[in-house]
Amino acid sequence: MKKTLGEIAEIIGGEVSGDKNTIITNVAGITEAKNGDITFISNSKYIQFIDSTKASAIIISEDQKSKVKIPAIVSKNPYLSYTKLLIIIAKEREKHPLGISKNSAISDLAVIGNNVSISDFSVISENTKIGNDTIIYPNCYIGRNVKIGNNCLIYSNVSVRENIVIGNNVIIHSGAVIGSDGFGYVPENNELKKIPQIGIVEISDNVEIGANVTIDRATTGKTFIGKGTKIDNLVQIAHNVQVGENSIIIAQSGISGSTKIGSGVTIAGQAGLAGHLIIGDGAVIAAQAGVIGNVPPKETVSGYPARPHKQAMRIYALIQKLPELFEEFKKFKSNK
Amino acid sequence: MKKTLGEIAEIIGGEVSGDKNTIITNVAGITEAKNGDITFISNSKYIQFIDSTKASAIIISEDQKSKVKIPAIVSKNPYLSYTKLLIIIAKEREKHPLGISKNSAISDLAVIGNNVSISDFSVISENTKIGNDTIIYPNCYIGRNVKIGNNCLIYSNVSVRENIVIGNNVIIHSGAVIGSDGFGYVPENNELKKIPQIGIVEISDNVEIGANVTIDRATTGKTFIGKGTKIDNLVQIAHNVQVGENSIIIAQSGISGSTKIGSGVTIAGQAGLAGHLIIGDGAVIAAQAGVIGNVPPKETVSGYPARPHKQAMRIYALIQKLPELFEEFKKFKSNK
Amino acid sequence: MKKTLGEIAEIIGGEVSGDKNTIITNVAGITEAKNGDITFISNSKYIQFIDSTKASAIIISEDQKSKVKIPAIVSKNPYLSYTKLLIIIAKEREKHPLGISKNSAISDLAVIGNNVSISDFSVISENTKIGNDTIIYPNCYIGRNVKIGNNCLIYSNVSVRENIVIGNNVIIHSGAVIGSDGFGYVPENNELKKIPQIGIVEISDNVEIGANVTIDRATTGKTFIGKGTKIDNLVQIAHNVQVGENSIIIAQSGISGSTKIGSGVTIAGQAGLAGHLIIGDGAVIAAQAGVIGNVPPKETVSGYPARPHKQAMRIYALIQKLPELFEEFKKFKSNK
Repeated sequence: MKKTLGEIAEIIGGEVSGDKNTIITNVAGITEAKNGDITFISNSKYIQFIDSTKASAIIISEDQKSKVKIPAIVSKNPYLSYTKLLIIIAKEREKHPLGISKNSAISDLAVIGNNVSISDFSVISENTKIGNDTIIYPNCYIGRNVKIGNNCLIYSNVSVRENIVIGNNVIIHSGAVIGSDGFGYVPENNELKKIPQIGIVEISDNVEIGANVTIDRATTGKTFIGKGTKIDNLVQIAHNVQVGENSIIIAQSGISGSTKIGSGVTIAGQAGLAGHLIIGDGAVIAAQAGVIGNVPPKETVSGYPARPHKQAMRIYALIQKLPELFEEFKKFKSNK
Repeated sequence: MKKTLGEIAEIIGGEVSGDKNTIITNVAGITEAKNGDITFISNSKYIQFIDSTKASAIIISEDQKSKVKIPAIVSKNPYLSYTKLLIIIAKEREKHPLGISKNSAISDLAVIGNNVSISDFSVISENTKIGNDTIIYPNCYIGRNVKIGNNCLIYSNVSVRENIVIGNNVIIHSGAVIGSDGFGYVPENNELKKIPQIGIVEISDNVEIGANVTIDRATTGKTFIGKGTKIDNLVQIAHNVQVGENSIIIAQSGISGSTKIGSGVTIAGQAGLAGHLIIGDGAVIAAQAGVIGNVPPKETVSGYPARPHKQAMRIYALIQKLPELFEEFKKFKSNK
Repeated sequence: MKKTLGEIAEIIGGEVSGDKNTIITNVAGITEAKNGDITFISNSKYIQFIDSTKASAIIISEDQKSKVKIPAIVSKNPYLSYTKLLIIIAKEREKHPLGISKNSAISDLAVIGNNVSISDFSVISENTKIGNDTIIYPNCYIGRNVKIGNNCLIYSNVSVRENIVIGNNVIIHSGAVIGSDGFGYVPENNELKKIPQIGIVEISDNVEIGANVTIDRATTGKTFIGKGTKIDNLVQIAHNVQVGENSIIIAQSGISGSTKIGSGVTIAGQAGLAGHLIIGDGAVIAAQAGVIGNVPPKETVSGYPARPHKQAMRIYALIQKLPELFEEFKKFKSNK
């Protein structure tokens, strides 16, 4: 990229403050930025670096504009403006594997769309349909009777088991496993008899699935991930879980069987949800929370067992005061 | 499947209540069931749907029989009866990759049993022995000098390192890693010197290992998983861990080095166990528990640090009452 | 191996006590050792087995020498001496895949060093450089423009995305994913817009990365792992995290975006760190801790939210006394 600050402002929106002919060649975080870079401030923790940054320009909000001595783009939403710039640069640099590799193994009974890439040592099984413009990196396994939509991006070493349905514009990162058997057994004669898992997984449009995520197929029916939901690395989604639209599930969280997550829900890192629960739209589950009951819409819960966050915080604060309480009570008793 | 309710009752056991000629073509959960489906109730949370289900029939226990208005199979163990039906349907639909793919890489020094399937881009290394009827999905790596028994099912992208021993009827889900090095270092001159891990992993008959599970090889000797034990997705088993028979280890749990887990133990999701512990037969470790001491047989523990569950629950309840206690104590002091 | 105890003492250091002609053929843990094995004691939990061990010899410290009745090597650091012996045995037994497999897919534009092994079904993309003596196991994907140093060991089913930089003597275990996209979205019109992740991951010399670990690439700039740091299985390292030298990150821990970990830090199993934190050199994060603030150098923290360990332990102890406190307070009130 080589653009003036003025040109960038036109593309991403916002007003230039300072020299609009400043040449910008790259983007960088505020502490790593060098001459030629444009940076941004969104998290207030980083305002302390505003004077020492070596960036040539900065994307900043109206109310922090006065603090800046270098050329700037003043934006209503610096983070979004920065993202728009990143999208342009990413597009310039993007280079995925192209075409159908002679080293892939594609069933004669598979149906492959237009402009599809299937890379070395990837397997497409019988009766599977891959939509237009979808890119499959090396060493993936796509089972039989799978349906993958248009414009998907499937990175290396991904496994998609039989009968899975994946929408359009879905991104699946390396090592993810979609459609492994749900974990179900019934005791019989002191042994654990496996309950067959004959259901599927359905992933809706615009979903992103992180590296080494596992999403189990349903016992019967389907495990379902709604449109636009984003799942971070190493998350576990058990059989028959339903997730709504535009929810966020952060790394290493786990959701037990048959739990229903609403839309716009945030589940922070390493949280755990028991099975057969209902989590309302817009709810927030704090990091490492252990959720064992339903959560109403828009409620924030934390701790184990998870409770409304304000209540949990109040109790945490009191717990910190226990040494004092015990001390005072002791004195009180002896004074009596 | 197309069977009458009477035929199904004969196969899975139980008595028909209502029209035994009802035609059943599929199985489904109580809220998803459609005409032609048979469903079941085992978790009492789902009794509320008994009147609204669209299922054509239901498997139910004697004591709930009276609540049902549709044809039913009355069973002593509805869950087990349902499982038996699922097994029949799963068998009908089952279709694994067959035969030895010309795209696999099998050492001339490997010994392959009868009726074995080795799929595209899977590697079988020298001196490795694969038992009869075992199926290996695409993109697996089986190292040298490995022994895999009869009738195993190894899904795609699995790694089994050198010298590992796997019994009969073992299922390994996609992305699992068996025999990675144990995590051991000794400090020397301010650096961490790697302790070689020259032991093995031994997996007994009828074990099931979830997707993206990691089981480390022993430093010396073996990491051992006993007969019939079931391990869910993303579980970590460290070097020299010993697990007994028919234990259940739920998703994202982690067991540290040299800990011994008994038989019939349940370790719930995201639980963590320190190293060098002994967990007695039939013990239950609650979800997210942090276990730092031995657990006696049949004990249930929860919380961090994990304690007997009843005691932990009592203390959790009291913690919830802290605001009240602090308030009362404050009043008490001022009234004094 | 077949050596006398005297020969072993010369190699690993330490003085022989007892018959120096004792023949040693293998090493084993104290409870598993058989005739011909040498064992060791480092963890005091295992001293109870000192009389019943079937080992032919033992490596032991000066102060425990008197307890031993079998031939011994008395060492200042039994664990280190034992490790040196393991290194010798491991070297004898070591056997990695050799050479460039005809079943691999190597770009004409890749630069491959001397004595490199690239195994079946592994992919090396364009403009990627692999240093001398590096070994790549089967089914790995190495993206374009990657730089891997000398003498690295990359086990099966590993994914390394484009532009990643890996130093010398790095070990990456099976299923690890290096360079997946960081997890970043910005809300726009009720949807989550993906923030492109155009940065890299840089792994320094002598780092070891466990099985199924995920290390995300930076948004811009780099995610960085310092020299000699060791990462256990199933750990999540988010975008723009910086880790210092010789730190230890134990299984299933997760580090959120932009957090800086110092050198010589220990992060125990299943710990979680929030984003944008600073963890000082030599700090210790206890197992399952939830860290939401900076941690000073050499501080040990535990619990959720994590606090200095001594303080946390004091509070845990008081929590255990809550039943007593409530009881006493109740009596106190009624006596008043």
